[in-house]
Amino acid sequence: MAFDNEKKTYLAKADKSKKGGIDEKVVYLLETINALPEYYTTSSCSGRVYLWKGTGKKSETQWLKVSHDLIDEDFFETDEADLVWLRLEGVILHIACRDLPAAHLLLDKARKFYKKSCILSASNKIIVEIRGSEFMEMPLYKDGKLLFSGDFAWLKDLINAKLEKMWKDMGTFRKIL
Amino acid sequence: MAFDNEKKTYLAKADKSKKGGIDEKVVYLLETINALPEYYTTSSCSGRVYLWKGTGKKSETQWLKVSHDLIDEDFFETDEADLVWLRLEGVILHIACRDLPAAHLLLDKARKFYKKSCILSASNKIIVEIRGSEFMEMPLYKDGKLLFSGDFAWLKDLINAKLEKMWKDMGTFRKIL
Repeated sequence: MAFDNEKKTYLAKADKSKKGGIDEKVVYLLETINALPEYYTTSSCSGRVYLWKGTGKKSETQWLKVSHDLIDEDFFETDEADLVWLRLEGVILHIACRDLPAAHLLLDKARKFYKKSCILSASNKIIVEIRGSEFMEMPLYKDGKLLFSGDFAWLKDLINAKLEKMWKDMGTFRKIL
Repeated sequence: MAFDNEKKTYLAKADKSKKGGIDEKVVYLLETINALPEYYTTSSCSGRVYLWKGTGKKSETQWLKVSHDLIDEDFFETDEADLVWLRLEGVILHIACRDLPAAHLLLDKARKFYKKSCILSASNKIIVEIRGSEFMEMPLYKDGKLLFSGDFAWLKDLINAKLEKMWKDMGTFRKIL
C-alpha cells in the first residue's frame, strides 16, 4: 500500500505544478504510464535543443536560448562573445516503480526504443530512467565568430528531424505500454 | 558463494582477452575495483574520439577512424563524400556487484565524478554502469565539404583537454574506492 499512497500524493502535487508547464508533447505518454498501477512518473522532458555557454558544470553554465519545439534558422543566432555550444538532448523520463520486477518489465519494453534506459535507484524508491539516445554537442561560436561553415537551413532540418523522430518514438512507445 | 565463483570464472576469462587489448589507461582502475570483494568489472572503455558515418544504428554505422589517445590535427582529415560525424565519448565501466547495497554504495561514490551512472540490471546479475558525462557529437563533413570553420588546432586542443580530464578523473575515482 505504501507505493499506492506515494503515487497518490505525488500525482496530486504534480497536478499543481502542471500549470507551471509540463511539456505538452509528453503529456499523453505520462498519462498512459500513470494509468498503470505499477508506475508513476516523477519528472519528464520530451527533448530539447539549446545554446549554452560556461564550463558545463550546472552552477557555471548559462542557457542562452532553448526550444522544446521545432526550430527556425534564427535559433542559431546570438551576440555572445564567449564560446557558445549547441546541444540537443533526447527524451528523459523518471518513473517510480512498485518493485524490481515491475522495473525490469518496464526496462525491457523501453530498451527497444531507448537503449540507454536504466535504474537510477533500487533502494527506498525504485526509479527507472528512460533516456533517448539522440544527442548533439558542438561548439558553434568562438570569440563571436561562427564555427559552422555549412548551411543553417540544413542544420535546422537535421535538428528538426531528430526532434520529430523523438516525438514519434514517444507515441509508439506509448502504444506498446 | 555464487558471486565469488562468477567473479573467479569471469576474471579468468577476461585475463585471456586482455591480450586482445584492454585499454591501458583504465587498467589500474579495473585492478582496484577487482581487488574489492563485492565487485568485478565486465567491460570498460576509457573514453574515445571517432569519426563515423551512417544512420547511427549499430548495424548501419561505420567508424572511419578512432582514437583512445590524444589526437593530432590530421585526425580530422578524411576523403569521405558522405555525411561524417565527429563523436567523443566518456568513460564507460560495467561492474557486477554482489548485492544491491554494494551497488548503491558504488553508485554513491561514482556519482561524485560520474553523475550519469546507474544500475543496468538488478535481477540475476546486478550490474552498475559508470558513465562519464563528457560527450561531443557534431557533423564535420557533408558532401566532402568541411562544416567546421574554426581552427583545427583549437578543436584538437579542446578534445584533448576533455580526454585528459577523463583520465585524471579516473585516477581520482580510483583513489576514493
